Amino acid sequence: MIRSLSGTAEDQKLEDVQSKVDTRRIAIQKTGVKGLRYPLHFQDKSGIAQATIASIDMYVGLPETVKGTHMSRFVEIMEAYNQALSVEKIGDLLQSIATRLDANSAFIEIRFPYFIKKAAPVSGVESMMDYEVEIKGDFKDGQTQISLRTVIPVTSLCPCSKEISAYGAHNQRSHVTIQARKKESAEIVWVEELIQLAEDCASCELYGLLKRPDEKYVTEKAYDNPKFVEDMVRDLAHALNEDVRIASYVIESENFESIHNHSAYAKIEATKE
Amino acid sequence: MIRSLSGTAEDQKLEDVQSKVDTRRIAIQKTGVKGLRYPLHFQDKSGIAQATIASIDMYVGLPETVKGTHMSRFVEIMEAYNQALSVEKIGDLLQSIATRLDANSAFIEIRFPYFIKKAAPVSGVESMMDYEVEIKGDFKDGQTQISLRTVIPVTSLCPCSKEISAYGAHNQRSHVTIQARKKESAEIVWVEELIQLAEDCASCELYGLLKRPDEKYVTEKAYDNPKFVEDMVRDLAHALNEDVRIASYVIESENFESIHNHSAYAKIEATKE
Amino acid sequence: MIRSLSGTAEDQKLEDVQSKVDTRRIAIQKTGVKGLRYPLHFQDKSGIAQATIASIDMYVGLPETVKGTHMSRFVEIMEAYNQALSVEKIGDLLQSIATRLDANSAFIEIRFPYFIKKAAPVSGVESMMDYEVEIKGDFKDGQTQISLRTVIPVTSLCPCSKEISAYGAHNQRSHVTIQARKKESAEIVWVEELIQLAEDCASCELYGLLKRPDEKYVTEKAYDNPKFVEDMVRDLAHALNEDVRIASYVIESENFESIHNHSAYAKIEATKE
Amino acid sequence: MIRSLSGTAEDQKLEDVQSKVDTRRIAIQKTGVKGLRYPLHFQDKSGIAQATIASIDMYVGLPETVKGTHMSRFVEIMEAYNQALSVEKIGDLLQSIATRLDANSAFIEIRFPYFIKKAAPVSGVESMMDYEVEIKGDFKDGQTQISLRTVIPVTSLCPCSKEISAYGAHNQRSHVTIQARKKESAEIVWVEELIQLAEDCASCELYGLLKRPDEKYVTEKAYDNPKFVEDMVRDLAHALNEDVRIASYVIESENFESIHNHSAYAKIEATKE
Repeated sequence: MIRSLSGTAEDQKLEDVQSKVDTRRIAIQKTGVKGLRYPLHFQDKSGIAQATIASIDMYVGLPETVKGTHMSRFVEIMEAYNQALSVEKIGDLLQSIATRLDANSAFIEIRFPYFIKKAAPVSGVESMMDYEVEIKGDFKDGQTQISLRTVIPVTSLCPCSKEISAYGAHNQRSHVTIQARKKESAEIVWVEELIQLAEDCASCELYGLLKRPDEKYVTEKAYDNPKFVEDMVRDLAHALNEDVRIASYVIESENFESIHNHSAYAKIEATKE
Repeated sequence: MIRSLSGTAEDQKLEDVQSKVDTRRIAIQKTGVKGLRYPLHFQDKSGIAQATIASIDMYVGLPETVKGTHMSRFVEIMEAYNQALSVEKIGDLLQSIATRLDANSAFIEIRFPYFIKKAAPVSGVESMMDYEVEIKGDFKDGQTQISLRTVIPVTSLCPCSKEISAYGAHNQRSHVTIQARKKESAEIVWVEELIQLAEDCASCELYGLLKRPDEKYVTEKAYDNPKFVEDMVRDLAHALNEDVRIASYVIESENFESIHNHSAYAKIEATKE
Repeated sequence: MIRSLSGTAEDQKLEDVQSKVDTRRIAIQKTGVKGLRYPLHFQDKSGIAQATIASIDMYVGLPETVKGTHMSRFVEIMEAYNQALSVEKIGDLLQSIATRLDANSAFIEIRFPYFIKKAAPVSGVESMMDYEVEIKGDFKDGQTQISLRTVIPVTSLCPCSKEISAYGAHNQRSHVTIQARKKESAEIVWVEELIQLAEDCASCELYGLLKRPDEKYVTEKAYDNPKFVEDMVRDLAHALNEDVRIASYVIESENFESIHNHSAYAKIEATKE
Repeated sequence: MIRSLSGTAEDQKLEDVQSKVDTRRIAIQKTGVKGLRYPLHFQDKSGIAQATIASIDMYVGLPETVKGTHMSRFVEIMEAYNQALSVEKIGDLLQSIATRLDANSAFIEIRFPYFIKKAAPVSGVESMMDYEVEIKGDFKDGQTQISLRTVIPVTSLCPCSKEISAYGAHNQRSHVTIQARKKESAEIVWVEELIQLAEDCASCELYGLLKRPDEKYVTEKAYDNPKFVEDMVRDLAHALNEDVRIASYVIESENFESIHNHSAYAKIEATKE
């Protein structure tokens, strides 16, 4: 399914099946390409563009009269996109899609791993931690909405297990997910800020590299700071409620329980406007 | 994170941390267990219960005054559930969750592979085809909403490729997804009916086993019946619009393009009520 | 790619491309179908056949003179296979493949979830635990080799973290994998026996359902029983070395570290014959 | 499980549990870290280092007398590794691991997406194609063995379907996998060369971006060039047999059949030395 760019002489000899009139009278909310992998540079709070590999979905709305969209144009847009991506530039990218595809609505979802260099809490040794980031942009009815989603792996230690046991407490890796949208007039909310908020709400944060004094520190910190899955999302909701820039959010935590083969899970959604 | 059943003498000696009062004043929309695997029997149109393996998420809403839910009770409910599951019984299961967890809202998502025995189109040889099914039930504000979701793998053959090429046409496996909710008063909508609708909208349906005359048939049928990703969702939307039992639906098609390393995609959502 | 059964009149009109002579002079070690999903009944130590859903790979060796194998025959074999599968029956299944495909070698890999009903350690409440099982059978040079592979999720608690910390110790879910082949003359080795061996070598085993007294028990048991990833594979190697039925094994443990976003891993392979 | 670098004063106060003597008398073939994600630059034939994101496994052999390895040192090695990675540098990296971990054997597996800019066959428009690459290095018994593995997505068109059908032929995306090891004395074998070999053996190669004249070209090329899964691995084996640099290889093709919900598969392994 290609739907290539018309315009060249050679193209015009081949019929443009996509541009035919459709008679079923059913509009399509989203049509386009999904799972396109592309190398990108992403720029966050530090201002330094970080090289990463993205998986990209790009869609437009299709009116009921048009048979098909021109799939190849989406790829052309990414191919021509030679700037460092940042949350601020998503609006322009949505406009390019709408214009190039001659559409009234445009949608983009870009997922990629993002790295932060962290210092271990005692030794100070540095290492990389990886996070999954997703930027989601919708342009519809003349309005643009951009949201940021990050999965932050952390440690959770069970308060019940700590309370009832003579010693020890089960703990595990958990995935905290924040999807947040800022108020239109507010200053930008950075990926690194969302990560910081989530790590502050966990029993302890994770590190790529820890030496023995660090391992002692993180073990004791988690034990001093037990959290149910509900506690983590509530503390995080509280922090997001306090942040005046945030218009709405969905937060989740999934704890990969170390005593079961299933997860404990909690979710809070809120719109502040 | 266990949150076990209180009641036994031994239990009462161990403090019930979950039942403590929470002072953060933040309610949680969903908390519970995720990714619990359980063997189940599922009963569809034929009335015969088919053995399968499900992955189950079960949640309740938690008021702002309660610290944590009792995670182990969700598993007890599944453990006690010894009936063949069907879409009709989801309402009862939601009630059990709400009652057992002392909650005002309850949510369940059950995903499992489902098999249909199909006869090859010419030879008539029989084989199994597998489909992913998800049943989703929400009980909230005294109301129960149940929706059915099925992923139906099919063949799509590109109309543009057929039109412009002297011979041949690229085709590929596609995943058509239907999520549908029936009107409360309407008769049940069966999984097998949704599968049939999706297969009828594709270039051709898939089979587990085909002999040479069948392979000739499906090759020619797909070539005679080219469909863009947009055509498949539109034809399917048309069919669901005609079905008076359906209250709302979300339909998607993802074509794993055989000429690219990404997918073509289309989505239509509609609420008829 | 179908390669259907010849024999019917209709079939014979369509040329059997697969049976043509190949002139490249390159034999193929394995060719067949991969990722075929089928419902199965699997029978282990208890003698009771458990319904499950398998993903099946079936291959034959192809001599250098033959162009292609008959892919549809593999599916026909599974379709006709209406017995409860057990490790003992894999030899027959391999013979069926070799005969039906007219091949000198045959290979099968069958993967499926398997459930064991476990009683919680203190309360005795019962629940299901799920394990991934793979049966692998090779028939080659007149000899049949069957091996059994199981992934057993367990808890591991870090001895270093326990030793150096004033309180607590990080622990996490780990996946212990055993692939074992028995001596030809030896009695059968059951899946449930391998699971038991792995669970005995962990800091603690997992359960589907635990009440508070059970949570106290598993927390303290793991703390009393700290294990490095190396300890778990060594203890397991020791146990398999002691078992006279076992001819060879590959054991692995992957600990999904609760203080890092990567795993700790260890592997031991041994052939005793 | 940390096993941090000893040496600092603070470290020495905390007992080094890993360095204790082990009395079970069981050596461990591989122990280390698995699934460590790190940004890397990879340099292939062009000499230009390409930014990518790798998933890395690093192991050493552990003698029977040592209790555990020092897990944090593996991460320190990657953290200190600030050169562009290439196949040529894997030998040095293995030496660093062996030295730093005081081990007689060292193993590394590095997996990452790799992009090639391709021009469409008729229009010449350029776009990126993504491939999965894995470099595997073993240092054992004083010898270093390095192999290269690449997954190349291509189109396959079924010869049987073409032969027996009045028009059309089913085709689909296939994954061709080459794992190759070069002779020690031979010149380097580049990732891009393996990709080229695989694409030449398919019915047609894939592109990120195609315009209508290109779509016509790839459709007709695939139809003119039908291949069974067995044909693709045989043609590829032939090409690798001809290449005097290659010492051994394992090649596979998995065709995600567009008429079934399972794959057709073939595999050839050969050692030429």
